[in-house]
Amino acid sequence: MLITLTTDFGLASPYVAAMKGVILSLNGSAHVVDLGHEIPPQDTRHAAFFLASALPYFPADTLHVVVVDPGVGTDRSALYVECGGQRILTPDNGCWTLFGQQPARVIRLTERRFWRPTVSSTFHGRDIFAPVAGHLSLGLDPRKLGTPTQDWVRLEQKTPLRQEGSVTGEIVFVDHFGNLISNISEELLPGDRSGIEVALSGAKEHRITQWVRTYGEANINDLVTLTSSAGTLEIARVQGNAARLLGVGVGEPVTVSWSRS
Amino acid sequence: MLITLTTDFGLASPYVAAMKGVILSLNGSAHVVDLGHEIPPQDTRHAAFFLASALPYFPADTLHVVVVDPGVGTDRSALYVECGGQRILTPDNGCWTLFGQQPARVIRLTERRFWRPTVSSTFHGRDIFAPVAGHLSLGLDPRKLGTPTQDWVRLEQKTPLRQEGSVTGEIVFVDHFGNLISNISEELLPGDRSGIEVALSGAKEHRITQWVRTYGEANINDLVTLTSSAGTLEIARVQGNAARLLGVGVGEPVTVSWSRS
Amino acid sequence: MLITLTTDFGLASPYVAAMKGVILSLNGSAHVVDLGHEIPPQDTRHAAFFLASALPYFPADTLHVVVVDPGVGTDRSALYVECGGQRILTPDNGCWTLFGQQPARVIRLTERRFWRPTVSSTFHGRDIFAPVAGHLSLGLDPRKLGTPTQDWVRLEQKTPLRQEGSVTGEIVFVDHFGNLISNISEELLPGDRSGIEVALSGAKEHRITQWVRTYGEANINDLVTLTSSAGTLEIARVQGNAARLLGVGVGEPVTVSWSRS
Repeated sequence: MLITLTTDFGLASPYVAAMKGVILSLNGSAHVVDLGHEIPPQDTRHAAFFLASALPYFPADTLHVVVVDPGVGTDRSALYVECGGQRILTPDNGCWTLFGQQPARVIRLTERRFWRPTVSSTFHGRDIFAPVAGHLSLGLDPRKLGTPTQDWVRLEQKTPLRQEGSVTGEIVFVDHFGNLISNISEELLPGDRSGIEVALSGAKEHRITQWVRTYGEANINDLVTLTSSAGTLEIARVQGNAARLLGVGVGEPVTVSWSRS
Repeated sequence: MLITLTTDFGLASPYVAAMKGVILSLNGSAHVVDLGHEIPPQDTRHAAFFLASALPYFPADTLHVVVVDPGVGTDRSALYVECGGQRILTPDNGCWTLFGQQPARVIRLTERRFWRPTVSSTFHGRDIFAPVAGHLSLGLDPRKLGTPTQDWVRLEQKTPLRQEGSVTGEIVFVDHFGNLISNISEELLPGDRSGIEVALSGAKEHRITQWVRTYGEANINDLVTLTSSAGTLEIARVQGNAARLLGVGVGEPVTVSWSRS
Repeated sequence: MLITLTTDFGLASPYVAAMKGVILSLNGSAHVVDLGHEIPPQDTRHAAFFLASALPYFPADTLHVVVVDPGVGTDRSALYVECGGQRILTPDNGCWTLFGQQPARVIRLTERRFWRPTVSSTFHGRDIFAPVAGHLSLGLDPRKLGTPTQDWVRLEQKTPLRQEGSVTGEIVFVDHFGNLISNISEELLPGDRSGIEVALSGAKEHRITQWVRTYGEANINDLVTLTSSAGTLEIARVQGNAARLLGVGVGEPVTVSWSRS
């Protein structure tokens, strides 16, 4: 079984390595694939966007181990989730809920016999999630992991506000290139983009009016708006870093306005 | 079939993960290996040196998917290349041309039936290159991917200028340690290194006269010149970062001069 | 056979990729797993803590290739080590000696027929360690690699000083989150933590008195002490970076003191 790993552990620390060791000790032929270990520390919202963007492309029944875990060792639950055809092991922090709004199954992990014998208070990736992943990859029935639940943390997803002649949303992700990805779906905008203006209203207001289909249609360093690979409004600087240039990040309000005569 | 991935996507963004998902959805037993995802954004020249340094060591017929793609979504082509015994999928930006000067086959990808049904304007890694890699790994004849071509982007490779008593080249790569790798091949230099001087002539001139076989032959923090693992002149700071110390980078002229009585 | 890779090569440089190519060229079905390539440059002590924290979790006989190598190309030896049930290929710099104090076997690599035909002075990862790993993964008897030795570099591990009412150790690792991990084992401290004070005495002294079982028991930005996942005293800032806040790093003295009436 394919097992993917997504964490905020970085690659200079031994934590990802320890998790791989635990999984491979249980199942030496597990197929372990790194998705990303540079999720910003404790940023469950970043993880949520990451998963929503990546998980839809995986084969059915892939097992995704996701450990971004500010509540490690507290009474927050550990979950096994089936949703969108995928399987996820994760602390109960909502990071999977932008991907899978209607899970087919959520199980609260309670059966300690599938964990490491000693469980630390600070590293459940190694002591709970990795061994459970190893057991599942060997064919364990997930119902044995604990008790079904209907109660879990959900991340709020703000819905853009559509008004006459405008729609207001916010930046939900800043990618590696500094591109600003909003939650404003392309369908909320007029098909004809002429005369449309995008305003980012943070510490300092910025207005962008250059709409392109892709980066290379504008000049280097131009600020442009386009449709992101997730199908939403994106603000980018051609071959540059819009987030750094504009000094804005996740949560920044974005208003798209237009007027038709 | 072995499939390698090289990108400028970083590991905090979901783009590498999405590509892996697409490949593994087509071929769950594909052997996907990460080469590096920290190519500086849009830096096709960095990618070119990276590939020229790494690809020669791979088994014949390895498939390398390389996505550093400032021109994504424009009319730049997408290519399948066979050269140096390797197979490469890449935007037509020349990043493979320092590795393979005389390709056995170059095919322009035109057959959309091997792509994802919907192709975004900004993420051909997910929508074109990954699915084509998946199909090739299942045994697809590459001639079915599109039309052969003799026309592709070539990166210029400056040849060092050899004169009486000197040779002038430039820095072509700065590695993770801050070592400065030049394009001056070892064979262009006198075998006897005594009395040879290396000058970096950027904003401020630096002269280095300490030649070593390897870092550990000099003292910590010494500036030295030696033969890089690519067989060319390298400038390094022992257990330090020469690029940061000297404030120089790719493109910086390097002159090696000597005089014999 | 499972082969893991740990280096200080970073992921923007082609060095890890070249090593993978060499291994896979010798054994196309080798199972190569990345442990981490962001060990700080030349930091063998960081590598030693990394290995001691990760290797115990791997299946018996896993082969770990570890290349953090400030002495590359000098007369430092290259070693094959069996210890703690694991197998390690590494420059003789002590990086494995915090993991395996009593190795079952140490062999100095001398048999050049298992190396690449040409060995550079600066990249033994590609030219010695990767090909030897490839051969071992094909079943080569490690005794053929060279000559047994009883002489190798050992990293000193300072033992905490226990006195009446106090114990003094030092910070031995700073992790990706900025958590400060000390060498003071939990067993050296009184079971009852009330009235215990931790002092970090660097440029500026810091005193911490809030003991927790895990991060989430305190408020965001609180400085706390707890037991690390390695079983030693850890100083952390809840959802923050203690190392950056306090300006301290590896080697910083830590004193824990208590008084009982």
